[in-house]
Amino acid sequence: MSKRGLKIATIGGGSSYTPELVEGFIKRYDELPVKDLYLVDIEEGKEKLEIVGNLAKRMVEKAGVDINIHLTLDRREAIKDADFVTTQFRVGLLDARIRDEKIPLRYDVIGQETTGPGGFAKAQRTIPVILDICKDIEELSPNAWLINFTNPSGIITETVLKHTKVKVIGLCNVPIGMVYGVAEMLDVDVKRVSIDFAGLNHLVWGTHVYLDGEDITERLIDSFAGGKSMSMKNVPDLPWEAEFIKSLGMYPCPYHRYYYLTDKMLEEEKKDAETIGTRGEQVKKLEKELFELYKDPNLNVKPPQLEKRGGAHYSDAACSLINSIYNDKKDIHVVNVKNNGTILDLPNDVVIETNAVIDRNGAHPINIGHVPTKIRGLMQSVKAYEELTIEAGVTGNYYTALQALTIHPLVPSSTVAKKILDDIIRENIDYLPQYK
Amino acid sequence: MSKRGLKIATIGGGSSYTPELVEGFIKRYDELPVKDLYLVDIEEGKEKLEIVGNLAKRMVEKAGVDINIHLTLDRREAIKDADFVTTQFRVGLLDARIRDEKIPLRYDVIGQETTGPGGFAKAQRTIPVILDICKDIEELSPNAWLINFTNPSGIITETVLKHTKVKVIGLCNVPIGMVYGVAEMLDVDVKRVSIDFAGLNHLVWGTHVYLDGEDITERLIDSFAGGKSMSMKNVPDLPWEAEFIKSLGMYPCPYHRYYYLTDKMLEEEKKDAETIGTRGEQVKKLEKELFELYKDPNLNVKPPQLEKRGGAHYSDAACSLINSIYNDKKDIHVVNVKNNGTILDLPNDVVIETNAVIDRNGAHPINIGHVPTKIRGLMQSVKAYEELTIEAGVTGNYYTALQALTIHPLVPSSTVAKKILDDIIRENIDYLPQYK
Amino acid sequence: MSKRGLKIATIGGGSSYTPELVEGFIKRYDELPVKDLYLVDIEEGKEKLEIVGNLAKRMVEKAGVDINIHLTLDRREAIKDADFVTTQFRVGLLDARIRDEKIPLRYDVIGQETTGPGGFAKAQRTIPVILDICKDIEELSPNAWLINFTNPSGIITETVLKHTKVKVIGLCNVPIGMVYGVAEMLDVDVKRVSIDFAGLNHLVWGTHVYLDGEDITERLIDSFAGGKSMSMKNVPDLPWEAEFIKSLGMYPCPYHRYYYLTDKMLEEEKKDAETIGTRGEQVKKLEKELFELYKDPNLNVKPPQLEKRGGAHYSDAACSLINSIYNDKKDIHVVNVKNNGTILDLPNDVVIETNAVIDRNGAHPINIGHVPTKIRGLMQSVKAYEELTIEAGVTGNYYTALQALTIHPLVPSSTVAKKILDDIIRENIDYLPQYK
Amino acid sequence: MSKRGLKIATIGGGSSYTPELVEGFIKRYDELPVKDLYLVDIEEGKEKLEIVGNLAKRMVEKAGVDINIHLTLDRREAIKDADFVTTQFRVGLLDARIRDEKIPLRYDVIGQETTGPGGFAKAQRTIPVILDICKDIEELSPNAWLINFTNPSGIITETVLKHTKVKVIGLCNVPIGMVYGVAEMLDVDVKRVSIDFAGLNHLVWGTHVYLDGEDITERLIDSFAGGKSMSMKNVPDLPWEAEFIKSLGMYPCPYHRYYYLTDKMLEEEKKDAETIGTRGEQVKKLEKELFELYKDPNLNVKPPQLEKRGGAHYSDAACSLINSIYNDKKDIHVVNVKNNGTILDLPNDVVIETNAVIDRNGAHPINIGHVPTKIRGLMQSVKAYEELTIEAGVTGNYYTALQALTIHPLVPSSTVAKKILDDIIRENIDYLPQYK
Repeated sequence: MSKRGLKIATIGGGSSYTPELVEGFIKRYDELPVKDLYLVDIEEGKEKLEIVGNLAKRMVEKAGVDINIHLTLDRREAIKDADFVTTQFRVGLLDARIRDEKIPLRYDVIGQETTGPGGFAKAQRTIPVILDICKDIEELSPNAWLINFTNPSGIITETVLKHTKVKVIGLCNVPIGMVYGVAEMLDVDVKRVSIDFAGLNHLVWGTHVYLDGEDITERLIDSFAGGKSMSMKNVPDLPWEAEFIKSLGMYPCPYHRYYYLTDKMLEEEKKDAETIGTRGEQVKKLEKELFELYKDPNLNVKPPQLEKRGGAHYSDAACSLINSIYNDKKDIHVVNVKNNGTILDLPNDVVIETNAVIDRNGAHPINIGHVPTKIRGLMQSVKAYEELTIEAGVTGNYYTALQALTIHPLVPSSTVAKKILDDIIRENIDYLPQYK
Repeated sequence: MSKRGLKIATIGGGSSYTPELVEGFIKRYDELPVKDLYLVDIEEGKEKLEIVGNLAKRMVEKAGVDINIHLTLDRREAIKDADFVTTQFRVGLLDARIRDEKIPLRYDVIGQETTGPGGFAKAQRTIPVILDICKDIEELSPNAWLINFTNPSGIITETVLKHTKVKVIGLCNVPIGMVYGVAEMLDVDVKRVSIDFAGLNHLVWGTHVYLDGEDITERLIDSFAGGKSMSMKNVPDLPWEAEFIKSLGMYPCPYHRYYYLTDKMLEEEKKDAETIGTRGEQVKKLEKELFELYKDPNLNVKPPQLEKRGGAHYSDAACSLINSIYNDKKDIHVVNVKNNGTILDLPNDVVIETNAVIDRNGAHPINIGHVPTKIRGLMQSVKAYEELTIEAGVTGNYYTALQALTIHPLVPSSTVAKKILDDIIRENIDYLPQYK
Repeated sequence: MSKRGLKIATIGGGSSYTPELVEGFIKRYDELPVKDLYLVDIEEGKEKLEIVGNLAKRMVEKAGVDINIHLTLDRREAIKDADFVTTQFRVGLLDARIRDEKIPLRYDVIGQETTGPGGFAKAQRTIPVILDICKDIEELSPNAWLINFTNPSGIITETVLKHTKVKVIGLCNVPIGMVYGVAEMLDVDVKRVSIDFAGLNHLVWGTHVYLDGEDITERLIDSFAGGKSMSMKNVPDLPWEAEFIKSLGMYPCPYHRYYYLTDKMLEEEKKDAETIGTRGEQVKKLEKELFELYKDPNLNVKPPQLEKRGGAHYSDAACSLINSIYNDKKDIHVVNVKNNGTILDLPNDVVIETNAVIDRNGAHPINIGHVPTKIRGLMQSVKAYEELTIEAGVTGNYYTALQALTIHPLVPSSTVAKKILDDIIRENIDYLPQYK
Repeated sequence: MSKRGLKIATIGGGSSYTPELVEGFIKRYDELPVKDLYLVDIEEGKEKLEIVGNLAKRMVEKAGVDINIHLTLDRREAIKDADFVTTQFRVGLLDARIRDEKIPLRYDVIGQETTGPGGFAKAQRTIPVILDICKDIEELSPNAWLINFTNPSGIITETVLKHTKVKVIGLCNVPIGMVYGVAEMLDVDVKRVSIDFAGLNHLVWGTHVYLDGEDITERLIDSFAGGKSMSMKNVPDLPWEAEFIKSLGMYPCPYHRYYYLTDKMLEEEKKDAETIGTRGEQVKKLEKELFELYKDPNLNVKPPQLEKRGGAHYSDAACSLINSIYNDKKDIHVVNVKNNGTILDLPNDVVIETNAVIDRNGAHPINIGHVPTKIRGLMQSVKAYEELTIEAGVTGNYYTALQALTIHPLVPSSTVAKKILDDIIRENIDYLPQYK
């Protein structure tokens, strides 16, 4: 790793999240000396890249740190000799996300960016691109760490681990959001809260919650049972049912609502789709507003409105992870990492989301063993879906894709799976070279 | 094991299936010398026991074999020193089954005797009784083999294995029915067909199908894809969808329709419930007719009408198994047996349904290893449900029961799970001592 | 598989064992219609091949069966379109074996054909040759079954499984010899005895022994404890110590003496080496006598003297296995086969020796689960040695070879391991292309 | 945990190691507020307890910290309401150790305090006592942490985990000694060095060694290969052989010499036994000198001579661990802890020695997965020995004990195992209530 200043390449640099990332690097500049930050995007994203890139430049100038912001459409230039590559791109832009939400809804199935058939579609579009990026990394910066934030983050990370030689760690802001959620609920400093996480990306359970090391899981559960709720911007904030949450005895992630409250969530989605629009449609509007804000030449800090967008704590998750790697910190992060026996109920070669010690050599998960039976089955069946999704994404095998969708817990039958799959392929065909 | 003639105790001896069993013993009398067959039932079943018991007596007389048929309400007398105990009882009789079917339907959920919430309810009623029977066996005939046919067969067998010292093998006529199905479809002798089975009771896949040892799985699949179908009396015979069955590439059991064709099966069930009655209601009628037949003092063989009832091949499955144990045959049966690493994707201490070598010391499963990803997730999530169902059945813990139902793949949400659970407990409370 | 008559290729056909094999095929001719038996050997073995081949021809003639015996030095001609390939070759002939025995003895280490450093040396010579043979099979008869009898049989079978696509089953006459041993000791028909085997080739334990299906393990152990012994021609017949054998509570194989009675066995070996010669030297003499016998033009059956040689029950093991495959018998044989989770304490991809159901599709091991702690450690440490031995045999990596020998339980230190390894390589270099 | 000041009970408080422990508490007093330190010993150790206890009192006085030193023979008083119980007792005192060393040597087998038959004997004496102590803890301070330092530390820790409800972490100064060894060899601050440890107590490998997070394993190995050596006071410092250490490619612990250099170590031991005495005899002399020193009323710090004794870094290991628990530090220690799938090649319920994150809830091992084949076999076979040793220690079953010794890699045969076992039992019978 370069000792005189790091080179970071951010694929999808034109994203509205970028200011969050830039703020993260500015805050940590003293111990994490970023010298060059390459924001890469594609032709269609050029305008956004300009806008957000210029804001980034104003931010570093205002902060008085010596980070060079580079805006480029040349991915290989950005990746060459990079120390870290971060990814936050979205194949097909928000219009694809909106399609992902709407296709399943046609068949009374949850339509969501990352969970269920929507996530499947997103994975199929993203896998060919991430494999391409990895080829560049293998050639141009084989020692770089790929910090993947692109969704579905667990699936994409597993794809990289299974099909490339790139060193990768997957990230998500859900776990850190859950830690913040507890801190807010208890009104304590976030550093006093810690959680044992076990599961998959967007399907992670907090099996134990601690305040100053004392187990307060039951107290938290009681508060949920009493009606307190907690969610994230991307997921409607339906309260857990009292007796269910007590019987679970753990802290579910916001996305668990799609599984444990399927009927209510579907109803909510359908209502939204007919009124304020799907989440994708709402975000599209929000993004437009954000980019209007970003254009303001007087803006030189991350605007507070970004938080509505859903990327809260991105800087905590990504920059802090990079910092721990660079400085060999041996502290604990929640990451998407190769299972390798950490959870004995899942295959060794799959990716899980869990607490891991981070040092210069990567992420070392803390052993879990067997998970409780009540969360085991769902975790296993979603993982089987994920594995088939990856295989389909890499091979473009129609049968594998059909099995992936059929076995997803939110898809009621092979009949519906086939209809959704055919719609997905037809309406995304430009982004699915593997299916051609 | 008694060398001079076996004592068999059949719990639930008043069942309409009994003639099938008696026929099985008669056929094998030369190598399997049954001396005493105790048909046991409870007070409410006394009349049926008399009817079917008298038919049994006429059957052995006509066959000219020296089997003594004993009719008794004294279970302990029957179990004492028995070589084999077989179970085919139904707690709460057919009325309970009809409730099991109707409660889930109220909430648009599959209502079925063994699959889904119906099977859960049946398990909760049956577990206290089977544990009681096992206490008797532990005391009165500790070396006896318990051949369990009582449904849900896999769950009941696992309960016995986890909570008693009784030697048990679980049985079901689904796998043997599938073998017969192939033989009929190909119009060949059933002995020429064999199948590699892997899975759980009523959730078993034929991973490979052979004719004279040659793998004909693909041929079978093509024939399914072409519209050929095959089912059992208890499960509506909907055809598999062509592309789905090709993508699966295995031989699903009839009950898989509830998972792979959920929407159509639910529709079918609802239509039936409103017209010809649920399957339980139909069976109730059939049973009445059967017992009328059985009363005929001139009837001294198993009447062909019994086959409509759903217990086809019972004698093949049960008597042939007992025969193989008694004669140390080392041949292969499909049984419910402790996993013990046979399927690496399931815990060691659970029960699976699989091919096993049968000898005097019991059932020795043939190693499977990992199962294909496409069937792994569903198998694992149903097994997690089963484990919680057993725990709930033994402890009567409401929370465990709620989790069991919530995680069942056919139950859409914790909300619906709670409603169904509350209905089940309320309407079965006389049979659920553990919940009182 | 050819329906009109099988083609069998026997590599190392000039072996003195061949009459045993021929007798086996003659005995089973009615159900196992061998049409062509190709006996293949190399230039150095040409004379022996002629002698034994002519005896084979006289044997089939006398038996009046229509088996064509072909003698050839052209391995590819023999392998082409074969249904079964059997191997019984010995790279470096008996002189190499004698070296394998003598090198370790120099350093006070057990010197044995298959166990310890001697087996390591034999593996290093054999691996390049078996890989060559497998290349021919992959090209010329990809559907053939390779029935491997070449020692060290487990290691060679694992090599084939890990490094080729050939369908292979490994065989050894030790397990069947142990079954015969029990039958003789009890003076009963061998068919009444069965044994649960678990372990590795030449390190297999009979965990339970049955007579007519009744567990008689304790009775057998008591008889060992009382001084009864049982061994095979290749292993000196030292009695087990009474309290040791009782504490083991299982039936060890003859080769276990090298581990459990190391000091006495070493003493025995050293005494033999100085007096009657090592086992290899004795066998060399025996073979000479055998071939003199074989030359007799009047001899047209397997001569009884062959039994002293050590290959007893070869025909039972090999021909009977081929018969079970060909006729899809689904009976139980003891074979060397991929573990695949059968023994949970060993890796999935290694070869174990165990009971398996044999049918047209190969060997299907009967599940074992965890083995008892008292045999687990030795089994695991020898398997680790075997895995490194295979890796060294394939790569010729000196360091891997050094680790293999160092961790073998019979080698006292890395110092001694290095000395033995250097001697082995130096004195076998003509047969070790991978180390050049 | 008491917030106002901790109560610590040290069993075997009269040990010469105690000043090391006291020094550790003094150094950390600011963050680890020990209020009461109970030094417990038995009648035979009363004099030593007085001597070392008075030194401890002078040490805390000199340091000016408010720690109350209590000297007592009443173990229950000490344990009552303790926050931490530490153990450093030695059943049978040094005379027993000397016997442990000498008995195996009679039969040309390594005679060592913790490795081989000596460790077996020590375990048999210690297990009844530790179980007694744990009964007291279960009754009098069920929330206390037991920090076990008593050897064989891994075996004793596993005994507690398997047979009591006490929360335990096992400790050893070998891993920390290895870290210090690297730091000294490289002449760098010890904080810059870290090591991935995997294995068992006194059989732990440093699989990777890092300086500032950079992997320097190869550099270390080269330096070993060049003749550099490193050991601990208890283990003769024989150099590794160049090619062996290169082929291993890992950092073996000092005790590995007994396995990898058995012949030389045995020779060394025999020479010592005949000249300067066994290590136990040397230590006995050293201890005598130490206690003479300790008596000096002017001594009020840990004397430097203690380091020769072998307990270097004890304070680092024990006090620092207690500190991390108390302060919920989430830093990494090397401890003996339940495997639970951390190393996939060992059973879940055994104890391993490995890197773990320490917090208020105990030790959480960092996942390892499969270990390299070259270290797997030895690790597994010693673990099997340990499991039988524990079982024998708890039950006093002679057969289990005989199997334990027979399968130990350093014991050449069942014959020798029996002789050693009989000597051990006879000469330790006063300390082996379970064998009476």
